[in-house]
This record gives sequence, C-alpha cells and structure tokens, in this order.
Amino acid sequence: MPGTTALREVLRLPAGERPDLGRFDPAAVPAGPADKVAALAAVAAMSGRLASLQERLYAASTAGDRRRLLLVLQGMDTSGKGGTVKHVIGLFNPSGCRVRAFKAPTPEELGHSFLWRIEKALPQPGEIGIFDRSHYEDVLIARVRELVPRSRIRRRYTQINQFEESLADDGVTVVKVFLHISYEEQRERLLKRLDNPEKHWKFNPGDIEERSAWPAYQEAYELALERCSSEAAPWFVVPADRKWYRNWAVSRLLLEHLEAIGPRYPEADFDVEECRSRLLAT
Amino acid sequence: MPGTTALREVLRLPAGERPDLGRFDPAAVPAGPADKVAALAAVAAMSGRLASLQERLYAASTAGDRRRLLLVLQGMDTSGKGGTVKHVIGLFNPSGCRVRAFKAPTPEELGHSFLWRIEKALPQPGEIGIFDRSHYEDVLIARVRELVPRSRIRRRYTQINQFEESLADDGVTVVKVFLHISYEEQRERLLKRLDNPEKHWKFNPGDIEERSAWPAYQEAYELALERCSSEAAPWFVVPADRKWYRNWAVSRLLLEHLEAIGPRYPEADFDVEECRSRLLAT
Repeated sequence: MPGTTALREVLRLPAGERPDLGRFDPAAVPAGPADKVAALAAVAAMSGRLASLQERLYAASTAGDRRRLLLVLQGMDTSGKGGTVKHVIGLFNPSGCRVRAFKAPTPEELGHSFLWRIEKALPQPGEIGIFDRSHYEDVLIARVRELVPRSRIRRRYTQINQFEESLADDGVTVVKVFLHISYEEQRERLLKRLDNPEKHWKFNPGDIEERSAWPAYQEAYELALERCSSEAAPWFVVPADRKWYRNWAVSRLLLEHLEAIGPRYPEADFDVEECRSRLLAT
Repeated sequence: MPGTTALREVLRLPAGERPDLGRFDPAAVPAGPADKVAALAAVAAMSGRLASLQERLYAASTAGDRRRLLLVLQGMDTSGKGGTVKHVIGLFNPSGCRVRAFKAPTPEELGHSFLWRIEKALPQPGEIGIFDRSHYEDVLIARVRELVPRSRIRRRYTQINQFEESLADDGVTVVKVFLHISYEEQRERLLKRLDNPEKHWKFNPGDIEERSAWPAYQEAYELALERCSSEAAPWFVVPADRKWYRNWAVSRLLLEHLEAIGPRYPEADFDVEECRSRLLAT
C-alpha cells in the first residue's frame, strides 16, 4: 500500500514505554475512515483480501509452513471483544479459525501453571487463533483482586514475554489488541444491556462492582502494556468507543499482519499432466 | 412455516431402510429453489434467523440449558464438505461454532477407541459443532480398505448408534448429512483443481486411486446409512452436484433443527431496576 502509513505503526505501543491511558482518547479514529458508512465500506472492501490471505496461510501449512496468527483481544467489560469476533473474525473461513474465550479458571486449570490452558488453545500451523481474554487476565484481574502476591505478578510479566517470544520463534505472529473504551461508554453499554431483555443474559450484577475498580484496572493495563509490549509481540491500543472504528481497525491490523506474513500457495509436488491423463481415463 | 413441507422430512432417510444410492440423483433439487439466483437469495434471507437462533442457543446455555447442535458432514472427496463449512457455517457467529476436520488418525488416536477423538471434539452446551468427516470414516474407509475385520465394522455400527443415542440424551441434536455427488462430477471437480495452480494444494494423486474404489465406497455408505439412520440421529441425503442447492439445503436443515430446539433467552436472575439505579450512580 504505497503512500499509506501502516495502521500498525500508528497504533503500536513502543516497547518499554509506560502508556498513560488517560491521554488516549477512546473515541478517536486515528488514520481511520471518516464515518461509519465509510468504515463499513472499507471493511467490505478488505474482506476478499482477508479471506484470500487466510486461504494461502492454510494452504502453505499443508506443505510444512508452520506460520500462523494469534489475535489476542483484551479490554474492560463491554469493550467489544465478542463483537470483534462476530464482525471481524466472521469475515474468515470458520474452518481455519480457532476461537477461544477464557473465563475464570476451572479447578483443573488452577492446578497448572497459568500458561497451561493457553498452550492448549494455540492455533495450529496455518490457522488464525483468536483469544477473547487471555493469559493477560493473570496480570490484570489477578493484580487488581490480589489473587496472587505482587512478586508473582512481576515474574509473570517476564514469563509472558518469554512465552510470546517462543511463539514468535515457532512462526506465530502475535497481534495483541487492547480495546480501549471510556468509563462513560461502559456505563452506556451496560445500561443498554439492562434495557433489552434479550441482552439480560450478558449482564452480571458483579460488573457494577468491577466498575468501582476502574482506576486500578487502568493501572494494571498500563503496567501490562508497558512490561509486555515487546519486539516479538507488541501491543496495539485500539480506541473502541466507536464500534465501526474498532471493527475497521482490527480488520486492518489483521490485513497488514497477514500481508507481512505473505503466505504463498505451495507448488504441486506431483506431475500435473500425468494426473490429468490418469483422471481423464477414469 | 405453515403450508411448507419441512426439508428434513423430504431428505431424511427412514430408519433401517437400505438406500440404493444409484437411485438418488445427485443433481436433483428436491423441495429447493428453482435456480442459483433464487437459492442465494433464500440463503441470504435465512441468515438473520440462523444467527438469531444461534445466539439464543448460546444465551440459554449460560443459564444451564445443555442443548447444542452437531452437524456431521460426510461425502466422497470433492463432495463439498469444506465448501459447506465456508458458506453455511460462515453465516454464524464464529465464537459459538466448534469446527473440527478429521484426517487419518494419528498414532495417539490409534491408541484409543475410534470414538475417543470424537468425544474430545464435541460441541459444548450452547455451541454448534461441525464435523468435516467423523466417526463414520471408521466404517467407511475402514471397510473399503479392510483396515479392521468385517466383524469389527459390524460392532461399530452398534457402538455408533449407542454413542449417538447418548448424545441425544445429553441434549445434542445430531444432524448427519451425506453430500451425494456423482462419479462424473467428482472427475470435473478434480480436473478443476489440476487446472488451477492455486488449487493444487487441495489435490492428492491418491484421490485418483480412491476413485477406483468408488463402487465399494457407495456400498459402504449404503450400509452405514442403513445401519445408523436412527430415530435419535437420522441421516439426510443431500444431492450435492449443484453447490447452490447443497448450501441452501444444509442451511435449511440447520434452520429447521434450530427452530425445533426453540432456544429461549434466559430470564434475568437479578433485579433489573435496582441494577439500573446502582449503575446510574457510578
């Protein structure tokens, strides 16, 4: 895309820099389309290339290419992790996607290291993996709710960096997206869930208590973003108050990363003409 | 749908009846739209209801409803299993779908009963599971290639029926679809793969040898369909020479089964007004 600044350069958090989330406007639309109509059109225009790149990625894996992509979605309640999966991942062929939502750990999961359940859910070569929440919960809610001592949280940042570096070494392009919404937008979205009986199942009264810990969560996010935005696996801060911008931005980030992977259809390892003749004789 | 014969009544194979696949026309369009344009429009018109029913199914599971749906896709090479996943399952929210393609068993899988890997891939409550090939391979290729003795194949039919009955007891609606294509159509589709370098990765010279066993496979399918079309989990024969009919028919079968499940959004188990007040105070 000559002449266009890559969105990943715009939204990428520099390694080792502590972000002040209060200075990132959740309603901003950096490098994005002007409005919702333009954003929907831009996503529709990308969908063919996204599907084509996904097919190439999968095809390449059948010839031994181990590369794959992992999209990690993090954000406060109602920030749009589920909506992103529905609208953005819905553009891809479901057979090549591996979606996993991480909830509170089960007793079995608690019996293992915090990365155990993550390892089991990784995308296989050629796949696009999607984590709705992830191992970052173990340095976010775990820090805010003091589920483990601070010293252990600090060690986890290092463990996460080493884990993600090993993924990159194994051909996994890790795209970590923080969906950044405002305190006011979250209130509006929670109220909408209460207003609509068909959305009550998405509402949990505990979400209101969690809001009182909003500043502590923002601080925990700032720390996680600072400690774990590495060269191997940078964080991207996506303003998410506008759903149309969020969907466009995540689609665009995926497109840029898939184009950087540049997967190619493998060459035939058989004699095409000979196969054609044999087939025509059947 | 008053006045309309359900497609599932039209395509369903009666329990215990041996089908003569040679008498099912793979190019037929039973109870379907007249042509491709009409079929695409009909699928588009269904997509909103399919997505809505899927959301209700998922929502119900959050309140303890264990019901779910499992679509089993079987058919000869090139019959369109992958295309069905792409075009039909692509209509759903990926976060509620669990797609699994079964290949030749791995050494680890061979160390267990043939249903072991199947059990591990089942949809969870609220999900739509999709099997691209399945435990039926163990009475199809296993019979044709004589991978196990005939006596064991016979026992497997019974084991499959008991397994599927236990799934139905556990709230799984099992929809088994045989995508029926003709010998000639398979040749055309394989030739198209050879003609297009971007499709060479889908071609395997072994597919030509498999064609020589076509009659044996048709017989193995007839037997599996006869022995395993039960009340709990009937087989549906979908003529699949026309892709637009295939996509319409599978969409329609899923719609009818989801409507029969009739999932409902759960009622709020909290005080909506009280939550609204507390939220407004934040």
